[in-house]
Amino acid sequence: MTPEQENQIRESFDHQSMMTTFGASLDDLTPGTCRISAPILDGNQQQHGFGHAALTFGLGDTAAGYAAMSVMEPGHEVLTAEIKISLVSPAKGYRLIAEGTVLRAGRRLITVEAKVFAKDAGENRLIAVLLGTMVPVKPKPTAT
Amino acid sequence: MTPEQENQIRESFDHQSMMTTFGASLDDLTPGTCRISAPILDGNQQQHGFGHAALTFGLGDTAAGYAAMSVMEPGHEVLTAEIKISLVSPAKGYRLIAEGTVLRAGRRLITVEAKVFAKDAGENRLIAVLLGTMVPVKPKPTAT
Amino acid sequence: MTPEQENQIRESFDHQSMMTTFGASLDDLTPGTCRISAPILDGNQQQHGFGHAALTFGLGDTAAGYAAMSVMEPGHEVLTAEIKISLVSPAKGYRLIAEGTVLRAGRRLITVEAKVFAKDAGENRLIAVLLGTMVPVKPKPTAT
Amino acid sequence: MTPEQENQIRESFDHQSMMTTFGASLDDLTPGTCRISAPILDGNQQQHGFGHAALTFGLGDTAAGYAAMSVMEPGHEVLTAEIKISLVSPAKGYRLIAEGTVLRAGRRLITVEAKVFAKDAGENRLIAVLLGTMVPVKPKPTAT
Repeated sequence: MTPEQENQIRESFDHQSMMTTFGASLDDLTPGTCRISAPILDGNQQQHGFGHAALTFGLGDTAAGYAAMSVMEPGHEVLTAEIKISLVSPAKGYRLIAEGTVLRAGRRLITVEAKVFAKDAGENRLIAVLLGTMVPVKPKPTAT
Repeated sequence: MTPEQENQIRESFDHQSMMTTFGASLDDLTPGTCRISAPILDGNQQQHGFGHAALTFGLGDTAAGYAAMSVMEPGHEVLTAEIKISLVSPAKGYRLIAEGTVLRAGRRLITVEAKVFAKDAGENRLIAVLLGTMVPVKPKPTAT
Repeated sequence: MTPEQENQIRESFDHQSMMTTFGASLDDLTPGTCRISAPILDGNQQQHGFGHAALTFGLGDTAAGYAAMSVMEPGHEVLTAEIKISLVSPAKGYRLIAEGTVLRAGRRLITVEAKVFAKDAGENRLIAVLLGTMVPVKPKPTAT
Repeated sequence: MTPEQENQIRESFDHQSMMTTFGASLDDLTPGTCRISAPILDGNQQQHGFGHAALTFGLGDTAAGYAAMSVMEPGHEVLTAEIKISLVSPAKGYRLIAEGTVLRAGRRLITVEAKVFAKDAGENRLIAVLLGTMVPVKPKPTAT
């Protein structure tokens, strides 16, 4: 991962207004891995006050996507073609941590995994596992 | 679906703060189907101003979940065990519409599908397909 | 779909020794759909004498794959990038029928669905739903 | 895992005629993991002579299922509710090895993963990753 690629990923993250709404931060980025975390804010909950599945999904998918982007040829952006999430435990706690990892990087498709943990009274409990497919895309000049 | 069940679903929806953050409304509910829609608000976008995958996922998952709940025994709540989303087109437009459908209802597991469409210049374009598994849960007296 | 493409699909099917082991036949092929069926042979069962999930999967995946190939540019082959199967009912009966359908065809990825039914005492019961991603590949000169 | 459970799993495996057709063997079983392998026989191939996706799937799904069964209450059988497979590389080689692992065991649902490797010239190459949901079932007295 070149410094330009890391900048490109961090800029892309900063331009996602959904990540701002989630209060999310990009905490760690290495070639093939990405960690993103966010508090469980009042506005991002399901009917019992736990974190909403859309929050869990959004963090996991984004961590997996930037993990993929970190191993792509520079100048490309990443698109989620598809992703499956298994929600193994309720998102109970005060903060979610998503760790994305590249399982295999092909030229046209990158298979990724993410695990999402809930921080609750000191413990990090696994709440979700994601398995998906990322696609490199060349940004069009007109895209903004 | 009894009137009590419809009330229970609508109350559950209203208690999801994430749905409020999304500006979502539960537009239609029949036994085995549910339609939810939301505008693509400024705070729910990805880096190019399209709807974020977490928004698309959240609406699709919720529509599929309440479709499942509408065919469950009264007094139960619904939990997403897992769900897969194929993102077939960018969420470009001004409003997303998610239609959840029950494919098969067992006693312990309910297989559901959802399709999400983007309203853009009059046209409703398919942007995502979801396939997942819902589980009925008895709410615990202490849960709130 | 040109006649050459239909020939290419039928030849590809005939070269899959697994389809022969399954006793499978390619029953119908139109642009964007494919139907494949097979008996539940003695050698393709699980521990209770029902059709094995590998049989259900193999028929569904193959039907979905050829549905995708039927809408690709001629001269390409199809590869399953990933596919999810929900097994909604046991494969009880004497014959399985898999119907593959293209949900959306992009240039690089084709999103497909398949439904698998079991023929049992006249009735066709839905036993599985698949949702997956197919990729067109140019066959290498050396591949055979 | 009690000795009875291990026996029950090995008996169940032996009663799957599909595993015999695949030439598969159950090579290792510990609480929460299961390893199954099989040669790529002439009758289990796709159109280019590689292992068929139904073979890869069947081994991965079965390894994941028995991994789940090994942590269930004795006397239960396992059912795959759903499973997703990402096929990351062609099944090229002479033998496939599937390793199933329990990611989280709940009372009603068990989330499992499997990785499938192809043995080819000494090397074990990752060819598939599976993520799925297993359900414990009480065998009915009439089941055979």
